[in-house]
Amino acid sequence: MRIEINTERLLARIEALGRIGALPGGGCKRLALSAEDAAGRALVSGWFRDLELDVYTDVIGNCWAIRPGQKDLPPLVMGSHIDTVATGGLYDGVLGVLGGLEVIESVIDAGIETDHPLAVAFFTNEEGARFAPDMMGSGVSQGALDLEEMLAKVGIDGVSVADALEEIGARGREPVGALAPCAYLELHIEQGPVLEAEGTEIGVVTGVQGISWTEFAIAGRSAHAGTTPMALRQDAGAVAAGIAMEARAIARDFGPPQVATVGRMRFAPDIVNVVPEEAVLTVDLRHTDEAVLQAAEARLVAAAEALAEAEGCTLSRRSLARFEPVSFDSGLVDEIEEGAKRLGLSHRRMPSGAGHDAQMFAPTCPAAMIFVPSQDGISHNIHEYTAPHDLANGVRLLAEVALARAGVVQPEGQTA
Amino acid sequence: MRIEINTERLLARIEALGRIGALPGGGCKRLALSAEDAAGRALVSGWFRDLELDVYTDVIGNCWAIRPGQKDLPPLVMGSHIDTVATGGLYDGVLGVLGGLEVIESVIDAGIETDHPLAVAFFTNEEGARFAPDMMGSGVSQGALDLEEMLAKVGIDGVSVADALEEIGARGREPVGALAPCAYLELHIEQGPVLEAEGTEIGVVTGVQGISWTEFAIAGRSAHAGTTPMALRQDAGAVAAGIAMEARAIARDFGPPQVATVGRMRFAPDIVNVVPEEAVLTVDLRHTDEAVLQAAEARLVAAAEALAEAEGCTLSRRSLARFEPVSFDSGLVDEIEEGAKRLGLSHRRMPSGAGHDAQMFAPTCPAAMIFVPSQDGISHNIHEYTAPHDLANGVRLLAEVALARAGVVQPEGQTA
Repeated sequence: MRIEINTERLLARIEALGRIGALPGGGCKRLALSAEDAAGRALVSGWFRDLELDVYTDVIGNCWAIRPGQKDLPPLVMGSHIDTVATGGLYDGVLGVLGGLEVIESVIDAGIETDHPLAVAFFTNEEGARFAPDMMGSGVSQGALDLEEMLAKVGIDGVSVADALEEIGARGREPVGALAPCAYLELHIEQGPVLEAEGTEIGVVTGVQGISWTEFAIAGRSAHAGTTPMALRQDAGAVAAGIAMEARAIARDFGPPQVATVGRMRFAPDIVNVVPEEAVLTVDLRHTDEAVLQAAEARLVAAAEALAEAEGCTLSRRSLARFEPVSFDSGLVDEIEEGAKRLGLSHRRMPSGAGHDAQMFAPTCPAAMIFVPSQDGISHNIHEYTAPHDLANGVRLLAEVALARAGVVQPEGQTA
Repeated sequence: MRIEINTERLLARIEALGRIGALPGGGCKRLALSAEDAAGRALVSGWFRDLELDVYTDVIGNCWAIRPGQKDLPPLVMGSHIDTVATGGLYDGVLGVLGGLEVIESVIDAGIETDHPLAVAFFTNEEGARFAPDMMGSGVSQGALDLEEMLAKVGIDGVSVADALEEIGARGREPVGALAPCAYLELHIEQGPVLEAEGTEIGVVTGVQGISWTEFAIAGRSAHAGTTPMALRQDAGAVAAGIAMEARAIARDFGPPQVATVGRMRFAPDIVNVVPEEAVLTVDLRHTDEAVLQAAEARLVAAAEALAEAEGCTLSRRSLARFEPVSFDSGLVDEIEEGAKRLGLSHRRMPSGAGHDAQMFAPTCPAAMIFVPSQDGISHNIHEYTAPHDLANGVRLLAEVALARAGVVQPEGQTA
């Protein structure tokens, strides 16, 4: 069963939501549970109600809208988030929510009934830009995060999640976990450059990379740059540069999807003619395979220790973050791929490099994601952009997969 | 002619001068032309006058003290400076001045007369810690720096050199360049670890390394550490780390006395999970041979450009400082070496990695330096230390070379 989606309606909604918290140069700022988030929630849930969906909000502020199915079955849930980072764009998260809404409205417009209920949802504080951790609402919803613990979290402005929920009236009465989806589908912009660079229309997301953040601190000895021979130095900066190069070498030797990033680097005393006494750097390693990620970590640490020892420096390290990889449901991933083929959309399997609400559903139900291209790979940036035809392709594929999973009730009363 | 020096007198003077501007944890602060410098000048010039030397101060505040010779010849000048950095030690500069004074007093004590006058001097603002450039007084004295231009220089506290000289009464009436030395000898602590590490007593300084400071700024593109494949990155930080490693490789491949130091390194936006958009680093290259120094610079720049190009980054660079190497007078260097042999002091030829007043004399008269060990190679630090026997060895050698150059008048009236 193929349905027509209304791209203009989708774009108009994306633009309307983007005007809430709009920033002067473009993009928008709707931090989780802020006044702007409240206005965005009101707008989107109003659209839900316009379609006479069953709308409810749970105790962590996740908002769910359900169109009943013809059978007493768990719902097929489409969703994402509508909060943004401080300098966010119009598409990150929003596409998954308004795309899901567009699927449901198009289904209604086409007079189609499904066996499973169709649901769309937006989850509280996916970004983590105001309250840590990120993916909070979906995590609580699926039991990965503790409700009371999350309600007590205090944001960058000193306000707790509980108080912020109360303040904007976003704390609902439904208990978490009340709704057990038959499957979860999330349409999202890639937030990276791969699809655009390849000219591929659809990313079939196979999982979320594991993430390992390590901070290395090197202690050497400050010395005069002119009077100290190379052989007598304990140069903390040289060790740091060596670790950075090793991180690169690991990514090169392991090959894709291994990535390695040295995002932070600081020297002390940071003076032109003084050999650095201290250096601190961070290494962000990601891989889809936990065993490979561990191998990358082990090689990095061994190399860092060897570099420090060779230079007569001391090395300390601490983990800043560590998440194991998440694999999406292979059956659902296959369905997305087959759907893309049926729609004649070019596609490639790929992992997600960033975290998403879908990974919180992966342990509890079949979950998967669809990516569409991000112009220049830019996201978390006011210049974030995905072209209308790419947005529409994503929603068409979302509809294709959702309807197949939800079971279209044929005119004869038979399921497709 | 061998004379006995009085080590206790030397040490007492070093300690007395060190009490002026003494810091709580040790060391001292006598910034050029400060109240502390004024007190130091009064103390040292008072010692000059106690010996009935001819003391005069020139218009840039250099203070000279002369013991007349038996012939109408230019003086043999020994000297250095008594100003310090903000967290200075007791020996840097001071040893050359009080060592020279000790030589003269010991000569007087021994009843020896010389053909050439013997002079000791301290020069204004060698450190450059309050007023840039450094080596100001000696530079003006020897015509390398313009008097009026230097008088107009404004220090870190907003006071000009001219006003600071007036304020502490250090502006003399003697014109610069009035005194043309027959030779200039400077005893100094090494300020590096070489002599101590080798167990060598004396450094016969052959010249001062050329210095090349370059700041490299790399512009790449910020990108998500998770979603951006390695091949699609423009990582400014990786280029910076590569340049740092290349600087090291140059020092290794060229061998001593080539040194290379990356003292400053900064990334932007300096966030764990963002590929750096900008990186800035400095490279300090030094060598005694101008041609080699130029070759090192050329290799570094070529490598930096290649690294930036390979990463799709843009590179800009600017010179922060550039001084050609200075070679000391080979005859005088030989005399220092021979003097060390005669005194039974272990010695090695070495360049100076830091700048010194002696390099300002090198173009105008035979000039050379004697180094004594610095404990742990530390200088410009309150823990700067040189053991009494090393201080005494340096002064003995200074006396040996100075007397040979100045010509000792024998009892029979014959020159030695």
